[in-house]
Amino acid sequence: MKALRLEHWQSPAVLRDVDRPEPGPGEVLVQVGGAGACHSDLHLMHEFGEGQLPWSPPFTLGHENAGWVHTLGDGVTGLEPGQPVAVVGAWGCGTCERCRADLETYCDHPERTRAPGGGGGLGLDGGMAEFLLVPDARHLVPLPDGLEPVHAAPLTDAALTPYHAVRRSWGKLGPGATAVVIGVGGLGHLGIQVLHATTAARIIAVDPRESARDLAKRSGADLVLAPGDALAATVREATGGIGADVVLDFVGSDETLLSAAAMVRQLGDLTLVGLGGGTLPVSFFSPPYEVSVQSTYWGNRHELVEVLDLASRGLLHAEVRVFGLEEAVTAYELLAAGAIDGRAVIAPNTEYRP
Amino acid sequence: MKALRLEHWQSPAVLRDVDRPEPGPGEVLVQVGGAGACHSDLHLMHEFGEGQLPWSPPFTLGHENAGWVHTLGDGVTGLEPGQPVAVVGAWGCGTCERCRADLETYCDHPERTRAPGGGGGLGLDGGMAEFLLVPDARHLVPLPDGLEPVHAAPLTDAALTPYHAVRRSWGKLGPGATAVVIGVGGLGHLGIQVLHATTAARIIAVDPRESARDLAKRSGADLVLAPGDALAATVREATGGIGADVVLDFVGSDETLLSAAAMVRQLGDLTLVGLGGGTLPVSFFSPPYEVSVQSTYWGNRHELVEVLDLASRGLLHAEVRVFGLEEAVTAYELLAAGAIDGRAVIAPNTEYRP
Amino acid sequence: MKALRLEHWQSPAVLRDVDRPEPGPGEVLVQVGGAGACHSDLHLMHEFGEGQLPWSPPFTLGHENAGWVHTLGDGVTGLEPGQPVAVVGAWGCGTCERCRADLETYCDHPERTRAPGGGGGLGLDGGMAEFLLVPDARHLVPLPDGLEPVHAAPLTDAALTPYHAVRRSWGKLGPGATAVVIGVGGLGHLGIQVLHATTAARIIAVDPRESARDLAKRSGADLVLAPGDALAATVREATGGIGADVVLDFVGSDETLLSAAAMVRQLGDLTLVGLGGGTLPVSFFSPPYEVSVQSTYWGNRHELVEVLDLASRGLLHAEVRVFGLEEAVTAYELLAAGAIDGRAVIAPNTEYRP
Amino acid sequence: MKALRLEHWQSPAVLRDVDRPEPGPGEVLVQVGGAGACHSDLHLMHEFGEGQLPWSPPFTLGHENAGWVHTLGDGVTGLEPGQPVAVVGAWGCGTCERCRADLETYCDHPERTRAPGGGGGLGLDGGMAEFLLVPDARHLVPLPDGLEPVHAAPLTDAALTPYHAVRRSWGKLGPGATAVVIGVGGLGHLGIQVLHATTAARIIAVDPRESARDLAKRSGADLVLAPGDALAATVREATGGIGADVVLDFVGSDETLLSAAAMVRQLGDLTLVGLGGGTLPVSFFSPPYEVSVQSTYWGNRHELVEVLDLASRGLLHAEVRVFGLEEAVTAYELLAAGAIDGRAVIAPNTEYRP
Repeated sequence: MKALRLEHWQSPAVLRDVDRPEPGPGEVLVQVGGAGACHSDLHLMHEFGEGQLPWSPPFTLGHENAGWVHTLGDGVTGLEPGQPVAVVGAWGCGTCERCRADLETYCDHPERTRAPGGGGGLGLDGGMAEFLLVPDARHLVPLPDGLEPVHAAPLTDAALTPYHAVRRSWGKLGPGATAVVIGVGGLGHLGIQVLHATTAARIIAVDPRESARDLAKRSGADLVLAPGDALAATVREATGGIGADVVLDFVGSDETLLSAAAMVRQLGDLTLVGLGGGTLPVSFFSPPYEVSVQSTYWGNRHELVEVLDLASRGLLHAEVRVFGLEEAVTAYELLAAGAIDGRAVIAPNTEYRP
Repeated sequence: MKALRLEHWQSPAVLRDVDRPEPGPGEVLVQVGGAGACHSDLHLMHEFGEGQLPWSPPFTLGHENAGWVHTLGDGVTGLEPGQPVAVVGAWGCGTCERCRADLETYCDHPERTRAPGGGGGLGLDGGMAEFLLVPDARHLVPLPDGLEPVHAAPLTDAALTPYHAVRRSWGKLGPGATAVVIGVGGLGHLGIQVLHATTAARIIAVDPRESARDLAKRSGADLVLAPGDALAATVREATGGIGADVVLDFVGSDETLLSAAAMVRQLGDLTLVGLGGGTLPVSFFSPPYEVSVQSTYWGNRHELVEVLDLASRGLLHAEVRVFGLEEAVTAYELLAAGAIDGRAVIAPNTEYRP
Repeated sequence: MKALRLEHWQSPAVLRDVDRPEPGPGEVLVQVGGAGACHSDLHLMHEFGEGQLPWSPPFTLGHENAGWVHTLGDGVTGLEPGQPVAVVGAWGCGTCERCRADLETYCDHPERTRAPGGGGGLGLDGGMAEFLLVPDARHLVPLPDGLEPVHAAPLTDAALTPYHAVRRSWGKLGPGATAVVIGVGGLGHLGIQVLHATTAARIIAVDPRESARDLAKRSGADLVLAPGDALAATVREATGGIGADVVLDFVGSDETLLSAAAMVRQLGDLTLVGLGGGTLPVSFFSPPYEVSVQSTYWGNRHELVEVLDLASRGLLHAEVRVFGLEEAVTAYELLAAGAIDGRAVIAPNTEYRP
Repeated sequence: MKALRLEHWQSPAVLRDVDRPEPGPGEVLVQVGGAGACHSDLHLMHEFGEGQLPWSPPFTLGHENAGWVHTLGDGVTGLEPGQPVAVVGAWGCGTCERCRADLETYCDHPERTRAPGGGGGLGLDGGMAEFLLVPDARHLVPLPDGLEPVHAAPLTDAALTPYHAVRRSWGKLGPGATAVVIGVGGLGHLGIQVLHATTAARIIAVDPRESARDLAKRSGADLVLAPGDALAATVREATGGIGADVVLDFVGSDETLLSAAAMVRQLGDLTLVGLGGGTLPVSFFSPPYEVSVQSTYWGNRHELVEVLDLASRGLLHAEVRVFGLEEAVTAYELLAAGAIDGRAVIAPNTEYRP
């Protein structure tokens, strides 16, 4: 079968013929209906080198995947061939207590896995191929009615990541609270939708681009702001002088983190989602008392179940531009050139074929 | 009446005659039974200068207070003269939603108070005097049976502060979890007692002093360690390779914070309590994913109620060395010289006198 | 001033001249802008007799109140004459730990109050008069912009009660969960609005009246059902066979409670809000395992702050029919006759007059 | 191999030769080191008849099991032959969201299992045999150091059940709170130990037998009481007039439930664990406002991990009387005669034999 392969570090992905995998005991072969093309794949092609990550090429790209169950390995129950499914992307060891508690993103023993901290498309073969071998049925979530694999695929990362970041802060987002989203890109605009659908908090969105601020408004933001010297002061003013209860930084630069620390309220959350490479100095007095500062990484099965429920009811919507598998190289070129609005999705199959 | 006054920044406290205050509507006059002498008072005498804090001398020292209700202002109900009480030390505006929710340490409008961020002994007259004027009955907690004001006084800070820091992490401290206490001084050893009394977590204590490590063992630590190059690795080994669920840093230097970040588990808590002045750089990859990093500041009324309950049942015990009010200057000199074991408490009155 | 008085048990309310109260220390005199007429007032007039409640007539009716701060008693801070406010209705002792924690509905020492378990309009003089004496400033919540006292008044009960009942179940109402509202009357339709505004749960509403089911749809219900033999089965079918996560019974008869127990999911909540007088037999096997069964009573200050925030943003809306104070007797006659759509509100004043 | 079989309803168990099972894909064969003899097994032998439960004889008894991993089915990872393990007893479908979240006791699709609501020893072959076939590795928890299978076996039910019941109420059991345990038998005395180890709540234990009250004291109770007319009043008095925050009823008769409702505090928990067959009438006014009434059933994997951690550290201790497999019939006869102190455990093997 055809697959889009990363063959070496520091090289673009290439389309190659590979053997179609066979599922062993407990494994499931998925016929891929959609595999999202993510900016982080460009980092894999162009930035990383040997020894920087705990896994290496060659492997097939594609870590945002959905499709149809095709072949069940021995012992798999609860799934039927032809059933549309989304794939949970973080594949932990499956046997530590964190994995048992459906927290595979924070697996306590990644060294027991073949691609520590990774999964399909991240060290192991991913979904940019006709078929994807999923190592355990627990990674598959049946799609609710009305949701096609090609639309579900990008939700497994671009929606799941902000969903996890918002969900952990629900306790601080009752009516009257304020959430700030910094950076209204692929993840940020879905973060706004998640806040809008699951809380009654006021939502402030920050982005230097007018088009992004318009997208924020359409996604449910109550107030949109451009960054600048007065940003933190404006947020404080909009919150009666007290600051934002939760700040989600989808950029993650030194600058946005400092800005987040300046606008967050005592006892609030400052959550770093973006891979901008920034660092925030935390001391006793800054950010304000008992603001919790943390990064969050991706999300897990039960959260994906909830994301898919929201999407099937129209409460979450990711814009998608679909490419065939043979156009995958082109899709990444367009992505690198900033010429993709919404999410590029590679669709190796358009329907289930037994 | 006599009172120990800070008259100017950069000067030692002095004993002076001041007028005995009269309680207005809603206020309560407390006859002081104990006022703890805290290291932070030495900072007030020797380190701070004009404009560094939102309030200034002159005022009476003493922010860890307990005594007996003496005179009730108009409109005060629920208290009786002669009743032994502890004083909640953080006095917020009392009318913002945070204060209404008993979170006065994080008052949203400190600018509405006479000593923003302070209270009695911190900008306003404190308890190192025969009488203390408490501006609202809500700051008073009746003492449970068996607890005298002179023993209750230090609990209002030296126990309340670690109690608040531990309590917010209870959700991460079930059986099988590990808590690390860095720094086994006045607050740290009470933090160990709180962990031992309120959770079934394993407790690891870290201190360079052997006497402090012995105190940690007597306070309930399961394992004591000296700091050093192998510290984080030893904690990881003691936790099956996964790290500590909660790290409480009662020192708060650059070094202890880095050490804390190196030993904490993904999804854990890293809480900065100590005033060591350190700074921790937080980025996407360090500390581990979704470790929440935060400072905590003091505690509030409902937490003091719980601290006093623990103490009255023998589950929390602060060692106390008692001085008369006329010995207060000496007490601080001994404290500055490191010659006090346990907590120095000034006792202006030894019993209630109507 | 004029006041609508309940003078004896078993008698209709009458309009009388009474003395205008003077606020003592800590008290606040409110000029009433709106006082909701509640069905439970009809119970007070017609059903109760001496000794059945812990308080007795004579008193002024009106327990859903809003208006303007008029005169501050000594020692009151944080409020200004002319400021529009809503009145929290449950007045506890104010000094027990439950009251200190803003849980006055569940005051541990109601025997310390003048109207145990009651408040203004329930044993003490209420808001159906030109002025209302509020015994402590803590019972007043400033109105957010855009909300008038006449519209805020019914929210203090008809919205606050369902808000409290929904809010306590938020943890069980994530995306994918289902909430059932039984009884779409004055409280029930606001319960649906609260569910819609603060959760992403699916909402099923049950009422025998078609007009009520229409109201449920307009309020945000996803599915409306009439009661009947197949009700529980229909709810199970609509939830993929597993039942509803939360059932809120705003009727509270034997029949609705049994129906609720038949449709609720293991580990769910079955909350009894309605005063229908029913009883549910609870045993090891019924309702399903670990379903929590509880009544809820009214709500508290922090919840009213949140309710008013929702209302000021248009996310909660109670229909109101306004009567002058001199029409109050008529309003209750119409209410008794079932001739009021929405909530009847008595407006003794239409604007603040110093 | 030998196995203790229930061959028909309404008959005592008998020792028979059966085939040793072979593990299929994902399954694990466990060499049994201990299988607890539970009173509920006597109910299976003597009380139930055809159609009353969703499963039927014949099957091997024993639902409290521990032993050593013997043979791994295809695809099983993370376990080694010879490794001592405890067996989680509730075996759900494994694929519904409740099972995925480690809540198999409340599986949403028990109809998909071979013994709906049951497991090994409850419809399927249990542990009173030389070997036990466990249908999925997820049901096995490695034993911590210092814990032998024969001591671990009874913890999987007699400790796990009260642990689950206590753990869900932790939020109501801070310092100053009071928990009441009604019935100090096999589960009740372990419930007291769990309360003592994991909370700082005061513990009141109720039992008519003096020996049981002595056991309660040794297990950590602060106060022991005999049932009687004054029981609820005594509990209220011991709690300053306000009642108990949490009442755990390990008897579950009409009488104990009524007593529980009379002693519980507003907003408390009243949890029915015992199989006494009683029913509690719940209405708007009784039990007090917002007391949550629920049954709880057994416990799940992550809770068993925590139970085993407590036991390995000496914080939980079940007394055990050990019988060989050939003595199993005798053990049940002694159990039926009330002649067993502590828990009877059948030990088919005393060590691992490859």
